[in-house]
Amino acid sequence: MMKKVAVILSGCGVYDGAEIYESVLTLLALEQEGASYQCMAPDIEQMHVINHLSGEEMPAQKRNVLIEAARLARGDIINLAQADPEEYDALIIPGGFGAAKNLSNFAVAGAEAIVNPDLIRFAQAIHQAGKPVGLICIAPAMTPLLFGEGALCTIGDDASTAAAIEAMGGRHQDCDSSSIVIDEQRRIVTTPAYMLAGNISEAASGINKLVSKVLQLS
Amino acid sequence: MMKKVAVILSGCGVYDGAEIYESVLTLLALEQEGASYQCMAPDIEQMHVINHLSGEEMPAQKRNVLIEAARLARGDIINLAQADPEEYDALIIPGGFGAAKNLSNFAVAGAEAIVNPDLIRFAQAIHQAGKPVGLICIAPAMTPLLFGEGALCTIGDDASTAAAIEAMGGRHQDCDSSSIVIDEQRRIVTTPAYMLAGNISEAASGINKLVSKVLQLS
Repeated sequence: MMKKVAVILSGCGVYDGAEIYESVLTLLALEQEGASYQCMAPDIEQMHVINHLSGEEMPAQKRNVLIEAARLARGDIINLAQADPEEYDALIIPGGFGAAKNLSNFAVAGAEAIVNPDLIRFAQAIHQAGKPVGLICIAPAMTPLLFGEGALCTIGDDASTAAAIEAMGGRHQDCDSSSIVIDEQRRIVTTPAYMLAGNISEAASGINKLVSKVLQLS
Repeated sequence: MMKKVAVILSGCGVYDGAEIYESVLTLLALEQEGASYQCMAPDIEQMHVINHLSGEEMPAQKRNVLIEAARLARGDIINLAQADPEEYDALIIPGGFGAAKNLSNFAVAGAEAIVNPDLIRFAQAIHQAGKPVGLICIAPAMTPLLFGEGALCTIGDDASTAAAIEAMGGRHQDCDSSSIVIDEQRRIVTTPAYMLAGNISEAASGINKLVSKVLQLS
């Protein structure tokens, strides 16, 4: 039977939402591996809106994470709060600052970060059912908060982010953008993607391996 | 020497901007073929903003095509008005309603459509220099307006869109999403992508062929 993977998006755009290339590469790899997927996102306001041309905040703008993430899913997306973890064989969370601004507040709170309660409910239910979870780019910073002490992950080789992960009880392992880190016991797979990748193909090489491994573990 | 391709984006999201999957697949295929690229977009207001979750217009919102397209390019994008066609070996325009709402007004004006003047200047300079142009999805509806009477293209098999292209002086040829239509004389390559594609892989099969052919003609 075709495996069904939940993909949690955090908006649409690297600086305030889901990283677009990572999200598309994840969906493409799932298709190419013969899996189906359902995109989902929390129905909450974005932390802020960034002008991706200038890098500056657009303080007059308000955008909703679910509505913007729907751009990445061509409208085929559901509210994370209404998603039933029992319907899925695995979970993958692409990166982008949205993972650290909307799904959690790691971008501003570091090791004191908290995670969106709907994400906690969904991800922990997947995890506790023995199903695998893949996290990409900066999303693995949520690993210890979602899956507890000792969980192994990578965000590449950024020392201060790695230190924050360790401070939250996680274990960090350096990794390049074409490779993955696997916590076999906890069924957690992570890859740095655009934490390190210099182009789309480099991000694809790690993401393709992550998708393959997540499906193999499911 | 590495070929350099101009990629013109029309926003970020299928219903009011550039189709995200088509744009990412184009950039990925260019990389994989060993070409470099520069994304560019007009610095104009979007025709409107569509809520991609509900499909409804968001009348209180105003967004700028260049600023939103910058999301798709991770900020690495230039103003189409300032782009020098002499710097590029080819041009590719992904689809999405942005091609018919922001780059032109084909979505509302049909055969009476007009095209953004900066796009006309850039695309005609590329064309007149004998360089190839690739157009994806609904973007080929601009073919006769950009490249004159008799230019051959496809938007898939939608009869009313094909009739409008013929009414503007173009020639339309039906085509499936995994194939391309080539006007060898004019060096114009087109593919239907999400005019017909049911998933990302289907769109990729036609877009990969288009990118290959455009580079071969350049």
